[in-house]
Amino acid sequence: MKDLEKLELIAGKVESPDEKYFDLAQQKLDNLTKPVGSLGRLEELARQIAGITGNLHPILDKKCIFTMAADHGVVAEGISAYPSEVTPQMVINFLSGGAAINVLSKHVGAEVVVVDMGVACDLIKNDALIVKKIGYGTRNMAKGPAMTLEEAAASVMAGIEIVQEYAGKGVKIIGTGDMGIGNTTSSSAIVSVIAGVDAEMVTGYGTGLDDKGLLHKIKVIEKSISINNPDPDNGLDILSKIGGFEIGGIAGLIIGSAYMKIPVVIDGFISGAGAMIAQKICPKSREYMIASHQSVEKGHRIMMDTLGIKPLFNLDMRLGEGTGAALGISLVEASVKILNEMATFKEAGVSEKSS
Amino acid sequence: MKDLEKLELIAGKVESPDEKYFDLAQQKLDNLTKPVGSLGRLEELARQIAGITGNLHPILDKKCIFTMAADHGVVAEGISAYPSEVTPQMVINFLSGGAAINVLSKHVGAEVVVVDMGVACDLIKNDALIVKKIGYGTRNMAKGPAMTLEEAAASVMAGIEIVQEYAGKGVKIIGTGDMGIGNTTSSSAIVSVIAGVDAEMVTGYGTGLDDKGLLHKIKVIEKSISINNPDPDNGLDILSKIGGFEIGGIAGLIIGSAYMKIPVVIDGFISGAGAMIAQKICPKSREYMIASHQSVEKGHRIMMDTLGIKPLFNLDMRLGEGTGAALGISLVEASVKILNEMATFKEAGVSEKSS
Repeated sequence: MKDLEKLELIAGKVESPDEKYFDLAQQKLDNLTKPVGSLGRLEELARQIAGITGNLHPILDKKCIFTMAADHGVVAEGISAYPSEVTPQMVINFLSGGAAINVLSKHVGAEVVVVDMGVACDLIKNDALIVKKIGYGTRNMAKGPAMTLEEAAASVMAGIEIVQEYAGKGVKIIGTGDMGIGNTTSSSAIVSVIAGVDAEMVTGYGTGLDDKGLLHKIKVIEKSISINNPDPDNGLDILSKIGGFEIGGIAGLIIGSAYMKIPVVIDGFISGAGAMIAQKICPKSREYMIASHQSVEKGHRIMMDTLGIKPLFNLDMRLGEGTGAALGISLVEASVKILNEMATFKEAGVSEKSS
Repeated sequence: MKDLEKLELIAGKVESPDEKYFDLAQQKLDNLTKPVGSLGRLEELARQIAGITGNLHPILDKKCIFTMAADHGVVAEGISAYPSEVTPQMVINFLSGGAAINVLSKHVGAEVVVVDMGVACDLIKNDALIVKKIGYGTRNMAKGPAMTLEEAAASVMAGIEIVQEYAGKGVKIIGTGDMGIGNTTSSSAIVSVIAGVDAEMVTGYGTGLDDKGLLHKIKVIEKSISINNPDPDNGLDILSKIGGFEIGGIAGLIIGSAYMKIPVVIDGFISGAGAMIAQKICPKSREYMIASHQSVEKGHRIMMDTLGIKPLFNLDMRLGEGTGAALGISLVEASVKILNEMATFKEAGVSEKSS
């Protein structure tokens, strides 16, 4: 079967989380020794995880963050503060454990798996590296489609297959992450098209452009959209024309998580673009998403509003890699521990509220 | 020496963090393999901890949350949804490990120490319980001062002595927490006086009052302030007239942390009242405070604005106990791990930004 057909089949099979477990989890939470609702969004998270997993004692002990890496042909237009060679250099840094994502994942007890979705050079084999190379970087979207429709489907299917493999290994919660010089340009283009807003509303400084660089980046995005004319309602069409291989892979991680009933924690701006593509291909996948942080990158807020999901925290971060997802995963794990480990009023012999 | 004199001596000896280390930490952060500033508030935290500890490799491996418990005479006015008996019941729950603070502290690898600052009954001895009982609950502040000035000083000194003892045991970061039926009433009174705003601006539903209960609570606070007429610039005077033994203890934890150059993570509304008292007694203690979460409780925002500190996250929590501080401690620890464990551009062989 071709990837396009496989993807359509899987996306169509995704079901909503089981609402019965939302209510059961809430009842359980309301009997714990704390004022009703006093743990706020931790309680919301616990309900969501109970619904996703269909389990009132969900254990999220095996946590995995997938950092999807790829290069972008549009870098030829001079839209990034860093050269494309940084993509493979950072992949090597991830594999040696020296990057922020390694430090934060270790802090929260999560494994980091790096995926070569389309880095522009061949990387040396490594046990912590999965190779799903769709191509050696996308083509320059300012001059035509970034990839073919079949490549777009293949990139999403790669993400889905990774989730299937790791679900088999017992992974209970997934975090998304990215590495790819040029990928804020592609992500801004995606949110501009899907949210239906001008590029300047959703384009930011990326890794560190100056004001002149930002104006140029906006023009390149506008040109890429007008040349390719993506259909705002067709996720794969958008991905193929103005997306990236890692963004497709992230969309696949999300759809795969929804398909396997695994909670998926979305990182920042690039992962948000992947989430928008996922939602267009498979609308129900949204119910499995947990937004970790509000990114500094302009356009992230519109992205979250369009998706209708609310980030858990805002620490003024804009690094990517999955760093926000790592911190978010720790909060999700905390929320289910509340559900699993707290005493009830009855067990603890604590008086309830006088009414 | 009397507690009043001891406290004055210690508060006068507190020094600001060493600014030299802010700059050195920033230089170190700017050489790590990430765009400059891209970890946002995690970088701010790392700088602050470097300055507080005078160390570019601060290790925060030993973490302790002190949950300060006491009763409040003002409960006789009917200002709480729960009866006073819940204070000792919850202390027992903390000691058996069934409360939210136990679950969240364990999640972040912190120890919970419960302190009896003035619970209205005697508690059974327990290794995890420190007894610093100033009295069997405060007196009813709606009818006169909650405690004497000497008791107020003793409650603050108790917190300072705990920090000194635990610093000797190697504790590297402290979290504050509270338990005390009636203590949102006292805390609202404190922020009303110190921020100079009407009680209704800073009084919330506490553990779960209805609207009628809230109006009554506001009247009780207004009466307590007008009867006692605390001096807005005198922290001990305010504490003695409208405070609580656990609030004094929290102020002591903060001043003690500043004195011992230990970072201190402030929980929510009650801990914020303790922080306001600490800042009045010892203005420099503010520089050692890290606000964890924005509480739902009305008045917390004005509290933080008056102190000039910005909470790290907002999860719509309003539980107290130190639950927000526990999650905050994990973020602070993450920030110093970034400082300690990430590779530099040179070490990782990653190209720097083209300028």
